[in-house]
Amino acid sequence: MTPKPGRRPKPDRLVIASHNSGKVREIETLLAPFGVAVVSAAALGLPEPEETGTTFRANAELKAVAAATAAKLPALADDSGLAVRALKGAPGIYSARWGGAAKDFNLAMERVQRELGAAKDRRAQFVCALSLAWPDGFCETFEGTVDGTIVWPPRGDKGFGYDPMFVAEGARETFAEMDPDAKHAISHRADAFRKLVAAYFAA
Amino acid sequence: MTPKPGRRPKPDRLVIASHNSGKVREIETLLAPFGVAVVSAAALGLPEPEETGTTFRANAELKAVAAATAAKLPALADDSGLAVRALKGAPGIYSARWGGAAKDFNLAMERVQRELGAAKDRRAQFVCALSLAWPDGFCETFEGTVDGTIVWPPRGDKGFGYDPMFVAEGARETFAEMDPDAKHAISHRADAFRKLVAAYFAA
Repeated sequence: MTPKPGRRPKPDRLVIASHNSGKVREIETLLAPFGVAVVSAAALGLPEPEETGTTFRANAELKAVAAATAAKLPALADDSGLAVRALKGAPGIYSARWGGAAKDFNLAMERVQRELGAAKDRRAQFVCALSLAWPDGFCETFEGTVDGTIVWPPRGDKGFGYDPMFVAEGARETFAEMDPDAKHAISHRADAFRKLVAAYFAA
Repeated sequence: MTPKPGRRPKPDRLVIASHNSGKVREIETLLAPFGVAVVSAAALGLPEPEETGTTFRANAELKAVAAATAAKLPALADDSGLAVRALKGAPGIYSARWGGAAKDFNLAMERVQRELGAAKDRRAQFVCALSLAWPDGFCETFEGTVDGTIVWPPRGDKGFGYDPMFVAEGARETFAEMDPDAKHAISHRADAFRKLVAAYFAA
């Protein structure tokens, strides 16, 4: 298959630049039909680079490029989180650490609610940046987003992270109350993933 | 919420113009987060109209309009199938009946393979038309497609219909070998559904 101008050919082996085994398994499942063999950064003993970027995109790119360079193989990384408008985009790239070093999302959600206080503007956006990089530093990024509002108290026990306090535009249920298939139809992560698959794998 | 010009407001009750209980359940799951109460045409005792259209879109629209008119409620219908290029688009709107009155898809797949014979062009497309209609006859249709090729022999036991003989562009596995989450990321039906949800429900 001939890639589009400026686009590399589809990789048949891929490092997943994540030390989260659930995330690695999920990506492996989604790419398996396209004949892509997946290996995790953890399995290769790669270090986790410091996330020094100031945007989701910058952090996804630096993780993907670091893994691709170290492994001498194409690598895929994601960076995602919740951006609350009245908090000037916080927790944003600090989403995972907003509840402290133990990554306690109950604390993180309480902090979002506390900082919002009586703010009338409850608008928020989930963002996912997915970067595919090669050992020479070439990198392409796909972004997905979903708009919604922050609700309190949190509701639902599906999903993870800030899902229990996020209601997508038009929805009544929180992301943590939605059936996974329904969430996948509109989520930021699924959106970014479909763009990546359409560009590189199902093309 | 204000609908776009020419678009009706989001319905909070919906008739699913299908007598297939699996399809009704699937649609109910996907729409539940948006506060849509779903009832099947079968539960309302609505008759199944004759599918006299010559395109997927025409059949989806006539089914949706017939159900909406009879039930005096908004109604959703789909029509989908496989279009094989070297067979001039067959089985197309006859996809379900291509294997005979008993809807035997093993026979239907054998017929596709037999009619293709030694044809070099194995290209095919799955198409899904999803129509949302109101009792006054207003109707909007969303189409999803996925390009691929016909393989023989069939492979895989997931999915249904022609899935075992269809390999999407870029993929190695057939639709019947793919994990459902991976299939949903690229399928014609998921594509049409996301367009409907984006236009009417998550908006």
